[in-house]
Amino acid sequence: MSLTRVHNLSISLDGFATGEPQSLEAPFGHAGERLHGWMFGTRFWDAGGSAGVDDAFAQRHSQGIGAEIMGSHKFGPPGWHDDPEWRGWWGPNPPFHTPTYVLTHRPRPPLEMAGGTTFHFLDATPAEALAVAREAAGGQDVRIGGGATIVRDFVAAGLVDLMHLVQVPIVLGRGVRIWDGLEALEDGYDIEAVSAPSGVTHLTFTRRATA
Amino acid sequence: MSLTRVHNLSISLDGFATGEPQSLEAPFGHAGERLHGWMFGTRFWDAGGSAGVDDAFAQRHSQGIGAEIMGSHKFGPPGWHDDPEWRGWWGPNPPFHTPTYVLTHRPRPPLEMAGGTTFHFLDATPAEALAVAREAAGGQDVRIGGGATIVRDFVAAGLVDLMHLVQVPIVLGRGVRIWDGLEALEDGYDIEAVSAPSGVTHLTFTRRATA
Repeated sequence: MSLTRVHNLSISLDGFATGEPQSLEAPFGHAGERLHGWMFGTRFWDAGGSAGVDDAFAQRHSQGIGAEIMGSHKFGPPGWHDDPEWRGWWGPNPPFHTPTYVLTHRPRPPLEMAGGTTFHFLDATPAEALAVAREAAGGQDVRIGGGATIVRDFVAAGLVDLMHLVQVPIVLGRGVRIWDGLEALEDGYDIEAVSAPSGVTHLTFTRRATA
Repeated sequence: MSLTRVHNLSISLDGFATGEPQSLEAPFGHAGERLHGWMFGTRFWDAGGSAGVDDAFAQRHSQGIGAEIMGSHKFGPPGWHDDPEWRGWWGPNPPFHTPTYVLTHRPRPPLEMAGGTTFHFLDATPAEALAVAREAAGGQDVRIGGGATIVRDFVAAGLVDLMHLVQVPIVLGRGVRIWDGLEALEDGYDIEAVSAPSGVTHLTFTRRATA
């Protein structure tokens, strides 16, 4: 069965997955790189990194994934829609290596990149986008790549089977909060928390089988 | 040195330390007892309980404390000010066993209870209340007993040396949030996270020595 998964979405103690304002120079606003420092120390990111619990979680990002869906704010800074040359933040060989669907109200033609990533631009509901991505994934899983708004929308629509959040010990105070609109999330998921020596806490949400 | 400490303040994943609405029948609103289930399983609460990590944290609530400061919402449900007979939620022998200061804009005469608890009612700023409680504590520490609003006020005023929060894996969606107004809290505190087999995560904030 093909699952819908979220991985490595870092949040602050107060639940913000990004700071503000987002710009070309500061993709995560005032959060800077502080939400992702835990990942830079893993082998997933750097061959000289640690193979501990942070790495074990981080590695799952890519395992068994056949397609990604991301939000418009993940693909580029405010204004990217007006730049016909914008090809994402990631250079010629983006780290997705699968068909990757960017949700936007202003679609453009697909962009074929090196390394197996093709960006497709879709104006669609979460359920519609998931149907398209699922088909493209060829039996593998679909990753919801973020940002927080898109993840929240897919969770609220009941479409996510597994969600991995990484809680970082900082208080951002403002930004986009993952929890808004998700009251009683625990009714549908088994939730596990594991704190790591790096200081972060991994939270996993596994959809409970329905009776 | 006498410290100012917060213990066993339970919050949801989205940071709410109580649900809503608060009433005589539901002191924690729609949160019910779900924020405190972890504590009911400890020896701190019940002699037949567990002596694991949850208990180790919970026990510190009472150790070395010479006075407590609490908010008006912790002392009683909405309307308690209009009931001259209201003596708190806890019966004749409240679990504080020290002078206990209730912050309120409508003070009343002190209430001497069994077991060493005397409730004093103070209309004062956090710093003023702390000075009074510190004096009464006779060299021991002062506990800021909650609710969330009072804890937040004391933290924001720079008065708290040690704060212990217990993050429970539920999403409440509404209530009183501990994090509001505490942006960049990590600048002043060393923060440690420890997840427990019960499913909660203990967060400790230890004030960093200033240079």
